[in-house]
Amino acid sequence: MALLGIDLGGTKLALAAFTEEGKIIRKDIIHLGDRSGSEVGKLITGQIRTILNSAGSKLDRIKAIGISVPGISYQKTGKVWAPNIQGWNDYPLLEEVKQVSGEIPVTIDSDRACYILGESWQGNARECKDAIFLAIGTGIGAGIMVNGEVLRGSNDIAGAAGWMALDRPFRDEYTDCGCFEYNASGEGIAKVAGALLKVNQNYDGELKKIVPDKITSHNIFSAYDSGDRIALAVINQCIEYWGMAVANLVSLFNPEKIIFGGGVFGPAVRFLPDIRREALKWGQPISIKQVSIEASALGGDAGVYGAGYLALKELSSVNNLL
Amino acid sequence: MALLGIDLGGTKLALAAFTEEGKIIRKDIIHLGDRSGSEVGKLITGQIRTILNSAGSKLDRIKAIGISVPGISYQKTGKVWAPNIQGWNDYPLLEEVKQVSGEIPVTIDSDRACYILGESWQGNARECKDAIFLAIGTGIGAGIMVNGEVLRGSNDIAGAAGWMALDRPFRDEYTDCGCFEYNASGEGIAKVAGALLKVNQNYDGELKKIVPDKITSHNIFSAYDSGDRIALAVINQCIEYWGMAVANLVSLFNPEKIIFGGGVFGPAVRFLPDIRREALKWGQPISIKQVSIEASALGGDAGVYGAGYLALKELSSVNNLL
Repeated sequence: MALLGIDLGGTKLALAAFTEEGKIIRKDIIHLGDRSGSEVGKLITGQIRTILNSAGSKLDRIKAIGISVPGISYQKTGKVWAPNIQGWNDYPLLEEVKQVSGEIPVTIDSDRACYILGESWQGNARECKDAIFLAIGTGIGAGIMVNGEVLRGSNDIAGAAGWMALDRPFRDEYTDCGCFEYNASGEGIAKVAGALLKVNQNYDGELKKIVPDKITSHNIFSAYDSGDRIALAVINQCIEYWGMAVANLVSLFNPEKIIFGGGVFGPAVRFLPDIRREALKWGQPISIKQVSIEASALGGDAGVYGAGYLALKELSSVNNLL
Repeated sequence: MALLGIDLGGTKLALAAFTEEGKIIRKDIIHLGDRSGSEVGKLITGQIRTILNSAGSKLDRIKAIGISVPGISYQKTGKVWAPNIQGWNDYPLLEEVKQVSGEIPVTIDSDRACYILGESWQGNARECKDAIFLAIGTGIGAGIMVNGEVLRGSNDIAGAAGWMALDRPFRDEYTDCGCFEYNASGEGIAKVAGALLKVNQNYDGELKKIVPDKITSHNIFSAYDSGDRIALAVINQCIEYWGMAVANLVSLFNPEKIIFGGGVFGPAVRFLPDIRREALKWGQPISIKQVSIEASALGGDAGVYGAGYLALKELSSVNNLL
């Protein structure tokens, strides 16, 4: 028997069949292209149908499905809010998937919940009951595991770490994405660099050669490596924000581990010792010394592993009821 | 039958016998005076012995004991760390109490855990599964309830909200107590005012009449009422910090309620609408609009109610095992 984990991202869909032990049997990646709204729903249900039909032998027959979505999964309604998929404001994903999955149980959760579930199943949070996955990509979110369970909050919106207030006073730029995300996400790194370039008219470094609107965090990391002073200022400020965020998560949650992932970690993994140094200044003195700060073990696969684990957990709870 | 709730504070001990329905049958307050170390332990065990012996009729016989301590209660060892009680670095409170309680079950938890438990039993968090008690007194701590259970963390230190990093850059003053506590606790209000008085040599208002080291938050609130400009600056900055803290707790935990208590709330309860306005700027936009921000219903009794509820919960779990 097998488990199907599906990770819907803003630009692509990953599907993986797992053994119960967490080994990947097969994996497919499909780019969303210009699909939006119900076309994305149809892509998912079509893929599920194909996989269910193709699994011929008993060995790889799908017994449960887990789906990770880039946004909020409302547990009571089965609907999904995904800001980067046009038309997915309150999308009835669970209902649609159930039409093709039949008797096979389906569970949907947010990408950040799936990241920490993935790490706790097959990554760096194995054997942790209290651990946090801090996902720093285009945006910022945290998958928070508390006493062995993912923290949901009263309306499934817990873990919105990008909205952390970390610097006074409030600035209008924070309105759409939050203070932490504005300053220290992938998009934030580019924005902060753009703003610095504007006020540093005398600067003549390598970032000057890039059209301001086209600067990405990757340009900044590469300029950092050649000692560019704008890039140094931006990254050093990010390290301060990342360290403060770690401190706040540790002071509030007292977790065993903080796991950094997402597209930025990636290139920023080398700064983990600096982030730790910054966090040590700010956090509750006992718990900040005890916490382990690590990179994701699963990288870009954390979501699909987490989706697989959703499936396994659903299957276990169904079987316990029998 | 009755439950015994004991709330140990930094300066006094409160003991209350409760019915299972949460009505107080009797209540005693004893000031610690100059007691320290094992004298405080003896005071507690002595009081317990007296109460157990005096409860004659079946009606008020104590069936379980809960104790709230001003610090950390280590669940695995039964030991207690309480920074304001001299010699209570790793104090074997559970062991000592068990020597007088005999067969009666005893549970110890931190004051912040007890505050939210008290509110959830008999105060403003009744029927909440996700709620936070933000205690702003001499120091700052948060009792955090997640899906109906108090958040402990991996080593019982969760909820150290006074250590939240809310303003860059780091200042040496934050080393002993954390950024949020330095700026917006009762002691912090006095410290920040003292620092402002130092740099405002031309100021000639009412705070000038108080010896700088003797200024308390109560002086600041009273000066605020007469429009004193230093007091206005200090309180307005506190409102900003309190709002940012609410925003961070709401973005991370998505609770139904944030309940403000502790000695400062009290006089600062009238600022809750301002705190809400500030929080609305910073927090995750959906959850910050949904959260209710309220004052404690139990005030100074939150801890002793929480201790009573600890006893009730312990009794229920013991009875379920029978």
